[in-house]
Amino acid sequence: MSKKILIVGGVAGGASAAARVRRLDEQAEVIMFEKGPHVSFSNCALPYHLSGVVENSDDLVLMSPETFKKRYNIEARVSQEVVAINRDAKTITVKNVLTNETYEESYDKLVLSTGAAPIRPNIEGVHNENVFTVRNVVDIQNLNTFIQHRGLKDIAVIGGGFIGVEVAENLKKAGYNVSLVEFANQIMMPLDHDMVQILHKEMVDNGVHLILNDGLDKIGEGYIQTQSGKEVKAEAVVMAIGVRPEITLAQKADLEIGSTGAIKVDHNYLTSDKDIYAVGDAIEVYHKLTHTPTRLALAGPAQKQARAAADHMYGIPNQNKGVIGSSSMHLFSLNTASTGLNARMAENAGIRYDSVYIIPADKVGLMPNSSPMHFKLVYEVPTGKLLGAQAIGKGNVDKRIDVIAAMITMNGTLEDLKDLELSYSPMMGTAKDVVNHAALVALNQLYGRYKEVKVSQVRELVENNAFIIDAREQGEYNRGHLKNAVNIPLSEFRDRLDEIPKDQPVYIHCRSGQRSYNMVIALENLGYKNVYNISGSYLGISLHEYYNDLVTGREKIVTEYNFK
Amino acid sequence: MSKKILIVGGVAGGASAAARVRRLDEQAEVIMFEKGPHVSFSNCALPYHLSGVVENSDDLVLMSPETFKKRYNIEARVSQEVVAINRDAKTITVKNVLTNETYEESYDKLVLSTGAAPIRPNIEGVHNENVFTVRNVVDIQNLNTFIQHRGLKDIAVIGGGFIGVEVAENLKKAGYNVSLVEFANQIMMPLDHDMVQILHKEMVDNGVHLILNDGLDKIGEGYIQTQSGKEVKAEAVVMAIGVRPEITLAQKADLEIGSTGAIKVDHNYLTSDKDIYAVGDAIEVYHKLTHTPTRLALAGPAQKQARAAADHMYGIPNQNKGVIGSSSMHLFSLNTASTGLNARMAENAGIRYDSVYIIPADKVGLMPNSSPMHFKLVYEVPTGKLLGAQAIGKGNVDKRIDVIAAMITMNGTLEDLKDLELSYSPMMGTAKDVVNHAALVALNQLYGRYKEVKVSQVRELVENNAFIIDAREQGEYNRGHLKNAVNIPLSEFRDRLDEIPKDQPVYIHCRSGQRSYNMVIALENLGYKNVYNISGSYLGISLHEYYNDLVTGREKIVTEYNFK
Repeated sequence: MSKKILIVGGVAGGASAAARVRRLDEQAEVIMFEKGPHVSFSNCALPYHLSGVVENSDDLVLMSPETFKKRYNIEARVSQEVVAINRDAKTITVKNVLTNETYEESYDKLVLSTGAAPIRPNIEGVHNENVFTVRNVVDIQNLNTFIQHRGLKDIAVIGGGFIGVEVAENLKKAGYNVSLVEFANQIMMPLDHDMVQILHKEMVDNGVHLILNDGLDKIGEGYIQTQSGKEVKAEAVVMAIGVRPEITLAQKADLEIGSTGAIKVDHNYLTSDKDIYAVGDAIEVYHKLTHTPTRLALAGPAQKQARAAADHMYGIPNQNKGVIGSSSMHLFSLNTASTGLNARMAENAGIRYDSVYIIPADKVGLMPNSSPMHFKLVYEVPTGKLLGAQAIGKGNVDKRIDVIAAMITMNGTLEDLKDLELSYSPMMGTAKDVVNHAALVALNQLYGRYKEVKVSQVRELVENNAFIIDAREQGEYNRGHLKNAVNIPLSEFRDRLDEIPKDQPVYIHCRSGQRSYNMVIALENLGYKNVYNISGSYLGISLHEYYNDLVTGREKIVTEYNFK
Repeated sequence: MSKKILIVGGVAGGASAAARVRRLDEQAEVIMFEKGPHVSFSNCALPYHLSGVVENSDDLVLMSPETFKKRYNIEARVSQEVVAINRDAKTITVKNVLTNETYEESYDKLVLSTGAAPIRPNIEGVHNENVFTVRNVVDIQNLNTFIQHRGLKDIAVIGGGFIGVEVAENLKKAGYNVSLVEFANQIMMPLDHDMVQILHKEMVDNGVHLILNDGLDKIGEGYIQTQSGKEVKAEAVVMAIGVRPEITLAQKADLEIGSTGAIKVDHNYLTSDKDIYAVGDAIEVYHKLTHTPTRLALAGPAQKQARAAADHMYGIPNQNKGVIGSSSMHLFSLNTASTGLNARMAENAGIRYDSVYIIPADKVGLMPNSSPMHFKLVYEVPTGKLLGAQAIGKGNVDKRIDVIAAMITMNGTLEDLKDLELSYSPMMGTAKDVVNHAALVALNQLYGRYKEVKVSQVRELVENNAFIIDAREQGEYNRGHLKNAVNIPLSEFRDRLDEIPKDQPVYIHCRSGQRSYNMVIALENLGYKNVYNISGSYLGISLHEYYNDLVTGREKIVTEYNFK
């Protein structure tokens, strides 16, 4: 007798599970239930409707129920909310949200792909008609129609994660005045605080009103008020402070919930009921690097989990490797991507780690569009095991991050990474790739061949009047430098050693770190014991200081910023 | 006492060795000898001077001898040819090519980074003043000046490797009439014959006169004559048929030469003399996948070898992992990249292998600039060990190839690759990345879940009147199809099973392979024993047939090509 498989949720995880079941079993009866009017839409592309990059919101829907039926013989029932799982009877109770009628449907196997819902905090005004969340095609249509038809100008986005930032960017591109309010001291938590300053600057440079370290207090008529008391003009508000796994159905059915508040699953994405699987944003997964349960709201892992669950129904084993969390984002002129653990996550996980931050060119310098790539690599101490990486730049940052993701997955170390033989041509990279370069610098640090201080420590060094050498040429120095730095170019230092003290720490930077690195190594070889490279160098210092100088009005530690 | 280290050759390998020695040893005396007038130039960027992408040829020189001296205390002696190694005396004999004076210089350690020289075949006219090779800045300046000052129009490039193809492209972009003559049946040997048809079409579409399967017979006045007797207009000729390792110096010094005709080195890049290292294009290296000595003319490996050699001088061990050969190239509107073994190389190495060829979108389909990526993955049978990959498309093909390079280096398999968690956002990729997708298809093939025929076999199938199903919708079929294909769309086949014979092989294709794959799997599940997916599908068939139809004038097997 053929299997009957029901799937709750028809987007990334649900649609993938359905399609895989069909390929494994032409006879199975497969029914997918979706509360909203659409299955199989592109969540990740939703914000791009606001700017018109995706002009027609219908394009966001990748496949209609009719196509599912005709191509895959999969029944996709839209506007049908699954309201209960009757585990003993092996049925679900379904409510047609258009007619309010309910009915039961039996299953042999059930897959929960219920996703995660945007959090709406319990504050004044949060249920006003001008407050929106962005979870599906209807949401983005409603938001876009509202702001266009009313001819609004001022919009506030609350929350600086992927959705908040992408919504802010696309609204800004569409010509609105956009404020983005974030409770933490930074947007985009996959990035470390030092790296994310580059994105803070990008937001500000592109006219987004960025408010950090501040939460939403209430939503008023034409404005919002932040917890610090700031009033910000806002005719519409987009709430994007985070998502909560949709576990109501699982909870009601008494399925086990994990410590993170998401549905607990085993190796094969089985819940505590051996006939019920769960996949996607609603579940908790095992983190390969921290060895703890974690949550992940990403489309790629959801699809892979769905396939593994379908495979398990048909006896095909699945090697569950745990997740590492890789993501990317485009923001105005910049691309950013990250994988694995950043320094903060490694710290929180109690892992002994170190990091390097380099700013090499993303392709051969004399090629058109060559530009600096900001790259931070995090590794375990003392093993050199790769833990994570973050990259930001105008070029192909995702390429470098994906290589690191592959290396982390294969338990690679800095030694493996330094020798990696990557494709090269001048239009697309450099002979020594960014990732090779980062590994070499990190190995020098790990092996104690040189020491560095982080870009975030520079202000303190300046305030304490540390001995800082600017290793750039004089012309570069004159166009902007640290207020108390001594200019001793790499090209002159061998003749000016008497100016460099041996009895106190010496900190060296140049533009991007390469020249200062050479000077640090040379001085160490000459017997200097206390020489430090300033990670990130002048580019990193400028970027790191810029945004905070701007918003706090504090005294600059540089005469001029340099961003090139 | 400080070490004295001499380096022969001042480009990729030589300059890297010198810089690394300096970082390891501030006291060492380091002298680099270069026969030509420049050290440290960008070989790989040379062709881009012809089109003006690199307008000023001086920009091709990355660092002057003066800068080497000032920054790194490295002496770079240009226009100095090393003519002999006196191993017993541990000296070299150097000729100043400007004055013809010779002198000796002693060494503690010697590094040979002599590179490889373009081959000039012994044919009529090869030494004419209008015949050029491209190895260094002077060469490209001479070529460019000659063709510009004489106002030439017709140029022939001989050889379809990296240099030949890039020179042809850049000359074409500069407005010349360009013919490219290649002895083999394809350009770009890192690519398989099926994949490279895409580049053949790109060359032809961009107006390059491409002549394959034909060699150069002689160079006449204003023309060349090919071995098949063709006369081709050519007022200047660029010889790029290949390079020969520069081993004269090593041979004269009685250093061991390997079976490939390049300098033999050990694990640490030491030659048969324990004080002489050799790196770069002049040496033979160990191939990680074929387990045989091989030659590689690539800048990245040269730099890594140079660093390893310098490290060894100072007792730092080096884990030699062997090479895999990764490279990339930009060609008109396309990017191409490859790593490891292609099918031909695997065949020649006697490795049991199989491959898949897929054509997914390089980013989410509704995003601007989404375009098809042609991706071929080669793996070992029966282990699923990754052997190599090739990718061609308008988008970021190099990203996918670099991920495969990382996986090959880490001895990854298809199972590892299918689960790889890569960064994703709609502007930069798809939730199931191209490489995940390829691994899934390959696993289905490896595990016997489905069978495929290669795009190169389709003509024979058509000629033998095989039963071929075109699984696209009728409108797509009408815009061009295989002459004898039956149109049974995926969306209809379940109602038209009576049209599909069970007693003969059935071959199925669609546009890019996804729909046909689903139909193949469904038919197998329905008890069909002999169903094959046509790898590459209609896009692949069109591209594979196009160029050969064009040049041979043979009968087309399609009513119209489709390239989109």
